[in-house]
Amino acid sequence: MSFEEMWAALLPVGRDEATGGYHRFAWTPPELECRAWFVDEARRRDLHVEHDPNGNMVAWWWPGDGSRGDAVLTGSHLDSVPGGGAFDGPLGVVSAFAAVDALRERGAALTRPIGIGAFAEEEGARFGVACLGSRLLSGAIDPARARALTDGDGRTFAEVMHNAGLDPDAIGPDDDLLGRIGCFVELHVEQGRALREPVGVASAIVPHGRWRFDFGGEGNHAGTTALPDRRDPMLPFAGMVIAAREAAERNGTVATVGKARVVPGGVNAVASSVTAWLDARGPADEAVRRTVKQIDEAARVAARPHRVSVDLAEESYTEIVDFDLALRDRIAGTLGGAPVLPTGAGHDAGILSARLPTAMLFVRNPTGVSHDPAEFAEPADRLAGVEALTAVLDDLACG
Amino acid sequence: MSFEEMWAALLPVGRDEATGGYHRFAWTPPELECRAWFVDEARRRDLHVEHDPNGNMVAWWWPGDGSRGDAVLTGSHLDSVPGGGAFDGPLGVVSAFAAVDALRERGAALTRPIGIGAFAEEEGARFGVACLGSRLLSGAIDPARARALTDGDGRTFAEVMHNAGLDPDAIGPDDDLLGRIGCFVELHVEQGRALREPVGVASAIVPHGRWRFDFGGEGNHAGTTALPDRRDPMLPFAGMVIAAREAAERNGTVATVGKARVVPGGVNAVASSVTAWLDARGPADEAVRRTVKQIDEAARVAARPHRVSVDLAEESYTEIVDFDLALRDRIAGTLGGAPVLPTGAGHDAGILSARLPTAMLFVRNPTGVSHDPAEFAEPADRLAGVEALTAVLDDLACG
Repeated sequence: MSFEEMWAALLPVGRDEATGGYHRFAWTPPELECRAWFVDEARRRDLHVEHDPNGNMVAWWWPGDGSRGDAVLTGSHLDSVPGGGAFDGPLGVVSAFAAVDALRERGAALTRPIGIGAFAEEEGARFGVACLGSRLLSGAIDPARARALTDGDGRTFAEVMHNAGLDPDAIGPDDDLLGRIGCFVELHVEQGRALREPVGVASAIVPHGRWRFDFGGEGNHAGTTALPDRRDPMLPFAGMVIAAREAAERNGTVATVGKARVVPGGVNAVASSVTAWLDARGPADEAVRRTVKQIDEAARVAARPHRVSVDLAEESYTEIVDFDLALRDRIAGTLGGAPVLPTGAGHDAGILSARLPTAMLFVRNPTGVSHDPAEFAEPADRLAGVEALTAVLDDLACG
Repeated sequence: MSFEEMWAALLPVGRDEATGGYHRFAWTPPELECRAWFVDEARRRDLHVEHDPNGNMVAWWWPGDGSRGDAVLTGSHLDSVPGGGAFDGPLGVVSAFAAVDALRERGAALTRPIGIGAFAEEEGARFGVACLGSRLLSGAIDPARARALTDGDGRTFAEVMHNAGLDPDAIGPDDDLLGRIGCFVELHVEQGRALREPVGVASAIVPHGRWRFDFGGEGNHAGTTALPDRRDPMLPFAGMVIAAREAAERNGTVATVGKARVVPGGVNAVASSVTAWLDARGPADEAVRRTVKQIDEAARVAARPHRVSVDLAEESYTEIVDFDLALRDRIAGTLGGAPVLPTGAGHDAGILSARLPTAMLFVRNPTGVSHDPAEFAEPADRLAGVEALTAVLDDLACG
């Protein structure tokens, strides 16, 4: 199976034919199909698939017991945002299989295990917390909190895991698995327009987080309720959306409201409540914190005249992640001076950096569009990514 | 079956136990259960149920052929808004059965047919056009346009009718049915706080309509897309929500955004499009038209700096409806001087007023809340409503 054959096999899974967008949410049928594809590709290469207690998978290339603690992990994730692109996640997993094939073809002599990882719920599209699989694995989230997370239909993470045949009581840090890994190198499509060459190396992930605003008003008839009698939560919600943009401009950050739930959602009914999610990121913790604080204050000011309540909850927050300097320099050296750049996107490599040396390779994205069907990497750049990952694995695992 | 027994039987159908809100959308299982209840209640009284081609039902009390054109129609609708209350619609249908029972108990001698109607998709909660059943029956909507209406899952009205065993090609004006009806009196829960006595009579329905705004931007990554590169449709949508309130205040109207769809709806994705529905009503056509025009202008101004497109479509519009003066005076006389008041809510009686003399009875709503689980009428007021409707039917059909 060449890179392009593997790519073509995954391409239709979970794709909405009308929009071209992907809907691969953790443990839904399309994501389970991606998992089955992963297991098949591993079996085809005689790689042993390890399922950790948190829904993550690792396909191991190593004849021995791999207990020396120096394994080289690569891979990425298979899930998507709602209506996302084909590349975010799967590019890193497909490239990892292709790099293993390339190493085998050139008869590379492995001196350390190579693992290909596929992390669960990286996008947080189903349960609201990004990188849930790697957070659980590395102890970055309390298992009890994770079990209680709910999806859009009100099903808990525990319930969904149980229905997928997993044991929700077993989730949490897996020090045995982490102890076997020496470093993690994740290849990923670049998600902005900063990378001008086919392949780059990550320097850092800027601070980023997600917050949930709940606006509570009073449902009522849209025709018969006089304006002064209304407690309409849509109005402060709208004020919050506008305040988010203004606060981001003021603080040199980005702030986005891309998801909102209006209850009950009838055309002829004043809403009773609106829940909206804020994504905010910036170059420094302080700027992000100040952005969120200003948005919260503006939301409360907008809510008061309408007698609407405002609740703000932090769903996740990740401080700045500087990738391991020695590993980054070694990779940049292997790649002959590839550009080094930061990213505004969170990744499993960022979460796992708290426990392991981690690094990332980025593959150029000509338009910078991501989390959208237009997300893209040129075929030549994909192959350049595989070649770079092959060289890096050769250096790290065959030295 | 007493009024309260019928009421209790309908109460659990389509109720969300968590919120107490009703979800009875046209031809979904809970609404089909309401239809089955209607047919059972008719059968229990030996009333013949007529199914018109548009999904409306009429239960006839009349031994003859009913072709004299003087039948008295009463009833209302059984469907609900999303998360609506128990009273809006069903109160009129249950009261109609109870009024027929009362007439029979007192041995009233019918001189004209009495029909109990249940109109389809009055709320427009599934296909977006309110009073769809009565609009089709009376020729107020083009059948081809109705067939092409889609629900939230993209299914057309034609498809849903077909799946319900109906013939979508047969929909449209039914002049035979209309020709048999002399007048229509709809009992309905009042939806504001204007009615201080148990029962009132409607004078008019103020002008009202629904408009759909489509904001088209570009989906992108919430972390990696710089603010100036964004084409975020949430921002002009928020501007439109705020502009709607301001325009309503300026023009002495009401304007409500109670439903919005954000695509793709990911927390970490700039939306690619937002669709939002505007409900606007006011004392005069001109004020409503001016309100919508000002909101549209504000939306376009808000959209321009973000390079977002704005499309505005009118989904429905109903000019002021003055109920038949002679019928209203006769009813008010029968009820001994009940208060006469206008309403901001649309009703099938408003649509049918273009073809027949129509009138409405309102039953007091202590809080004025409607389209919400808190919608209510006191048990004593419900019985006062039945008594009033009984007296009106006695006067109109037994004279």
